[in-house]
Amino acid sequence: MIVTKFLKFNTKGEGDIKDMTEDLKTILNNTNLNDGIMVVFCIGATCAVTTIEYEDGLLNDFRNALSRIAPKEIYYEHNKKWNDDNGRSHVKASLLKPDLVIPFRNKNLILGTWQHVVFVELDTRQRERNVVVQIIGE
Amino acid sequence: MIVTKFLKFNTKGEGDIKDMTEDLKTILNNTNLNDGIMVVFCIGATCAVTTIEYEDGLLNDFRNALSRIAPKEIYYEHNKKWNDDNGRSHVKASLLKPDLVIPFRNKNLILGTWQHVVFVELDTRQRERNVVVQIIGE
Amino acid sequence: MIVTKFLKFNTKGEGDIKDMTEDLKTILNNTNLNDGIMVVFCIGATCAVTTIEYEDGLLNDFRNALSRIAPKEIYYEHNKKWNDDNGRSHVKASLLKPDLVIPFRNKNLILGTWQHVVFVELDTRQRERNVVVQIIGE
Repeated sequence: MIVTKFLKFNTKGEGDIKDMTEDLKTILNNTNLNDGIMVVFCIGATCAVTTIEYEDGLLNDFRNALSRIAPKEIYYEHNKKWNDDNGRSHVKASLLKPDLVIPFRNKNLILGTWQHVVFVELDTRQRERNVVVQIIGE
Repeated sequence: MIVTKFLKFNTKGEGDIKDMTEDLKTILNNTNLNDGIMVVFCIGATCAVTTIEYEDGLLNDFRNALSRIAPKEIYYEHNKKWNDDNGRSHVKASLLKPDLVIPFRNKNLILGTWQHVVFVELDTRQRERNVVVQIIGE
Repeated sequence: MIVTKFLKFNTKGEGDIKDMTEDLKTILNNTNLNDGIMVVFCIGATCAVTTIEYEDGLLNDFRNALSRIAPKEIYYEHNKKWNDDNGRSHVKASLLKPDLVIPFRNKNLILGTWQHVVFVELDTRQRERNVVVQIIGE
């Protein structure tokens, strides 16, 4: 059986990291599925989904690592093309990718104690976001 | 129901990025499945699959970011081992990973307007490639 | 049909990379499923799963690339928070992500000749690890 839901929310722009874990657990609890996978997929080319210990210091460390890979200060051809400023956002999003697959068993997502599922806003402006949560199970 | 297909094509070597989106839509349309996931997986240790806005400038920005992570100029033990030149290709591939999972609903892949699904050739030479496209749905 | 198994092992700490390929093939062979996906997911916020050519030199090249992204020598807010030393471990884990999805057909995982599935220990100490292997197939 397949269940498809959507999580909609607003973000504060670049570096906003939303903890979706509780919302995902609620979506799973509202099905009657016992075992399977939950696919979490962010719609858009400037966002990503991953897991992280949701602690303010670490969230900054993670943002800093992304900025080392795609610094704000360097030249992006993409910005020239559209007279835009979010070349780095696209680059980070393509590196991190939009998808995450989490197994569940006995109606519980299998995650480590500190392993929270997060949406990562990489765009340079506030966005209205839509995340697909699709459950395949039995 | 599970459908397994393959996309075969030749690449021009390092940095060739193929837009697979239309081919993936065609594969999905040729099934009679309404809802589920599409798994896209590149066979090989020097390639990857991700999503990106398919715009020439951004494709260069993305290639440049990968080169900052695994520069051409530095020493790779792998190259010494096989007297090879693609240590950086392997490193980039393992960082990006070969898999992507895309949900679909009402016979449509759920993707953002600018979010194209791409194959990323990371090897230093032209390759014949084979990408698995597996659909699980109902 | 859905089968959920666990792979348990001890790691030697930071940079230990375990080849899980044979164990995964054994798990698949012990089911009677022909086609589908295998989800490999590491439980914990300081580990990851990916594919790589399992060759000692390349494993070092890969470790070095991760250290360029999240160097040992720089300051991590996370370390201050818990008086801990594994800020870099968390950052690398969130970049690599804990999940991998591998398609199989005719009872065989579809992988390239050199494409091995590995667990990557990123934590700074030895750990007892638990990896979920979930198979959805028919």
